[in-house]
Amino acid sequence: MISEKMKGFVQNNSVIRAMFEEGRIMAAKFGEENVYDFSLGNPSVEPPKEISEAIVRIATQEKPNFVHGYMSNSGYEDVRQKVAESLNRRFGTDFAAKNILMTVGAAGGLNVILKTLINPGDEVVVFAPYFVEYRNYVRNYDGVIVEVSPDTETFQPNLEEFAEKLTPATKAVIVNTPNNPTGVVYSEETIVKLADILRAKEEEFGTSIYLISDEPYRELVYDGQEPPYLTKYYHNAVVGYSFSKSLSLPGERIGYLVMPDTLDDAENVIAAAAIANRILGFVNAPSLMQRVVAECIDAKVDIEAYRRNRDLLCETLAEAGFTCAKPDGAFYLFVKAPDGDDKAFTAKAKEQRLLIVPGSSFACAGYCRVAYCVSYEMIQRSVPSWKALAASYGM
Amino acid sequence: MISEKMKGFVQNNSVIRAMFEEGRIMAAKFGEENVYDFSLGNPSVEPPKEISEAIVRIATQEKPNFVHGYMSNSGYEDVRQKVAESLNRRFGTDFAAKNILMTVGAAGGLNVILKTLINPGDEVVVFAPYFVEYRNYVRNYDGVIVEVSPDTETFQPNLEEFAEKLTPATKAVIVNTPNNPTGVVYSEETIVKLADILRAKEEEFGTSIYLISDEPYRELVYDGQEPPYLTKYYHNAVVGYSFSKSLSLPGERIGYLVMPDTLDDAENVIAAAAIANRILGFVNAPSLMQRVVAECIDAKVDIEAYRRNRDLLCETLAEAGFTCAKPDGAFYLFVKAPDGDDKAFTAKAKEQRLLIVPGSSFACAGYCRVAYCVSYEMIQRSVPSWKALAASYGM
Repeated sequence: MISEKMKGFVQNNSVIRAMFEEGRIMAAKFGEENVYDFSLGNPSVEPPKEISEAIVRIATQEKPNFVHGYMSNSGYEDVRQKVAESLNRRFGTDFAAKNILMTVGAAGGLNVILKTLINPGDEVVVFAPYFVEYRNYVRNYDGVIVEVSPDTETFQPNLEEFAEKLTPATKAVIVNTPNNPTGVVYSEETIVKLADILRAKEEEFGTSIYLISDEPYRELVYDGQEPPYLTKYYHNAVVGYSFSKSLSLPGERIGYLVMPDTLDDAENVIAAAAIANRILGFVNAPSLMQRVVAECIDAKVDIEAYRRNRDLLCETLAEAGFTCAKPDGAFYLFVKAPDGDDKAFTAKAKEQRLLIVPGSSFACAGYCRVAYCVSYEMIQRSVPSWKALAASYGM
Repeated sequence: MISEKMKGFVQNNSVIRAMFEEGRIMAAKFGEENVYDFSLGNPSVEPPKEISEAIVRIATQEKPNFVHGYMSNSGYEDVRQKVAESLNRRFGTDFAAKNILMTVGAAGGLNVILKTLINPGDEVVVFAPYFVEYRNYVRNYDGVIVEVSPDTETFQPNLEEFAEKLTPATKAVIVNTPNNPTGVVYSEETIVKLADILRAKEEEFGTSIYLISDEPYRELVYDGQEPPYLTKYYHNAVVGYSFSKSLSLPGERIGYLVMPDTLDDAENVIAAAAIANRILGFVNAPSLMQRVVAECIDAKVDIEAYRRNRDLLCETLAEAGFTCAKPDGAFYLFVKAPDGDDKAFTAKAKEQRLLIVPGSSFACAGYCRVAYCVSYEMIQRSVPSWKALAASYGM
C-alpha cells in the first residue's frame, strides 16, 4: 500500500540493514574492541565546550517563548546576520542577512534549493564519486541525475566530460568539496575552470545553471588547505552548509543556505526557498540550535584529532601497500581495491574485521571508503588487520 | 528561473507579506499596545519549567557525542519507547518503540507519511475548514486534495458529503482535532461514524484508506474534553503529533508519528516512513530535543491560561453580539462574519486595530479565525474595539 516511489527504497534498505546486523553479530562474536568499524560518517570528536555553555546560557537566561518560539521561516534575523558577517569576515564576501536561510542541516538545505529550482525533467549534474542521497533528493522533485564519471588519477572533477554533459535541460550542478567519499579538496584551478565552462554554457544555451556547493566538510581540512568559496568564482553559486561536522552536531540538524544577490532571479529564488522550507515541512531550522550556532559561529571541533587519525591511517595503509586519493579534507580515505573489485575488497576486509564501504555505493567502483572519524586507539588496534588484508592479496 | 510549482507560491506570499507589513505600520502609527493582533498561532504561554531544567541537565551531564550525534532515522530507541509507554498509559493503547517515528514537528510528520503513501493522482480528503498547508503538503507528492464542505451548524465533519467524496482513488483522509481554525473537538460519535464509513468504503472498493490525524492541539482542551484517540477506532489510523503547543516549543520542530501494527502493510509503511524521513532531508528529529521531550513526556504548559483567555474573549464577543463555533480546544475562536463576508469583516476589524484571519484562508468563507494565544491583558485592552466593531455592523 506504500507509494510506488518508496517500494524500491524499502527493498534496498533491507540490504543495508542486513549489513548493520552483520556488524552487530561480528561484535558479539569477536568482542566489540576487535571489530574495526570504518563504515560510518558520524563525528568522533566532541563538540567544542562553547556549545554546552551556550546551550545552558540561552536556556536559562533568555526568554523561553523567544528561544523556542516561531520566527520567520528563514530563521532569526540576528542569527542570519551573524552568519553573513562571519562569512564576509572569512571570505571577503558581501552577504547580508537576507542572503542566508537557516536550514534543517545540509540535507534540508539541499532539498529546499532543489524544490526551489527543479521542474520535472530538469537535469542535475553530479561528479562521481558522490554522496548517493543526491540521487534521492533530485528524484524528490522529479529531476534527472546526470553523472560525470570519475577522474581516478586526481579525483578532481572530470571537466572534459562535464562540458559534454551540460545541455539546455541542465538546471543545476552539485559539487561537494572537501569530498565525501574521497577526502579530496577541489583546487582553485578546478573551480575556475568549472566556472568558465558554466558561464560559456549559460551563454550558449541562454539558460541559468545553478552551482550548488554542498559543504558540510568545509572546516575539516589539513596541511593548510583553504577550499575556495564558490560564490566568488561564479555568479549562480548557492552554498549549502551544515554545522554537523564543524561543531559535531549532526543530530541537531542545523545548517544554512547562502543565496547571493548575484544569482539570476535572486529575489524570487530567495523568496521561494523560504516558502519551500515551510511547505516541505521543515517550517524553520530548530530554534535553540540557531541561537547556539550564532553564539559559537567561529568555534570548531579539534581538527587536529582528525588529522592525527588521518596520518596514522594513511601511514598504515601505505605501509601495507594500499593507495588512496589525496586526503586533504573531510574524514574519509578512498582506497583502491588491489584487484579493482571493491565489493570483493569489502568482503575480504570484513574477514579481517574491518568494516568499510564499497565505492559502488558512491557511483565509483574499484575503490572503498574508509571513514576515520573513529578513536585513534581503534586505528592503532586495526593495524595488524590491514596488514593481513594486504597479505590476503599477496602484497 | 525558479520552478513552475514555486512561482504561484511566491506571488501569493507577497500578499501575506503585505499584510504583515500593514500590521507593523499600524503598530508604529497607533502604538504597539493599541494594536490587537489575534492573527497568529504562536503559543503565548511559557514552556513548563521542566524544559529548561531538562535542557541544562542533558547538555551538561550526558555524553555530547550521544546527545548531539546521529541516531537511527526513526529517532533514539529509548525516546520512542518512552513515547509509546506514555501513549499506552494515557489511552490504553498497545504501541511499542517500533510504532513511533520521531519527526521534525507535525509538519515534518505529515510530509513523511504523505511521501510514504501517496502516488501521483491519489486523492486525499480534507474537511473544511482546514489548515491550508495540507494543500501544499499533498501537492508536494502530486496528490489531489478533495475538500468536504463545512457543516457550519456544528463544525463537526460533514459525514454525508464525506461518504460521497470517497472513491477508489482515495488514499488518505486528514483530520485535525482539536481543530485549527475552529477550536472544535470532534466528538466520539463523529469518530465512530467516520470510521464506519471508512471501513465500508475500504470493503466496497477493495482499497486501503489511511486516516491521518494531525494532533498538535491534543492537550489544549477545556471543560473536561477528552479527544478520542483515533487508532482505537480505526485500524488504518496514523497519528501525527507535535510538542509545539503542549510544551510551547514550536520553533524546535519536534513531534512524532504513530504507525500502529494494525495498519494495512504496516511493516512496509513503518520502514518506508523512516526512509522518507531521511530522503526528504529531515534525516532525524533534532536530537537534544528528542531527549528533552522524553524527559518531560507528561509535562504540559499552563492550559488554564489559555482557558482564561478563551473565556474572556468568548464573553467579550458574545456581549458584543458575535457568534462562534463551540470553542472546546486549541486556541482559536471561529467567529461568524455578521453579514457573511469574512474579508469585509477582517477589513472592518482592522479599522478597530483588531487583526484576525478570514475563513477563506481555511476554505470556509463567512467566518474569521481569532487566535487567543495572546496575553490576557491584550484581550482586556481589546474589549472596546470589539464593541466598536459590532457597532459598525449596527449590532
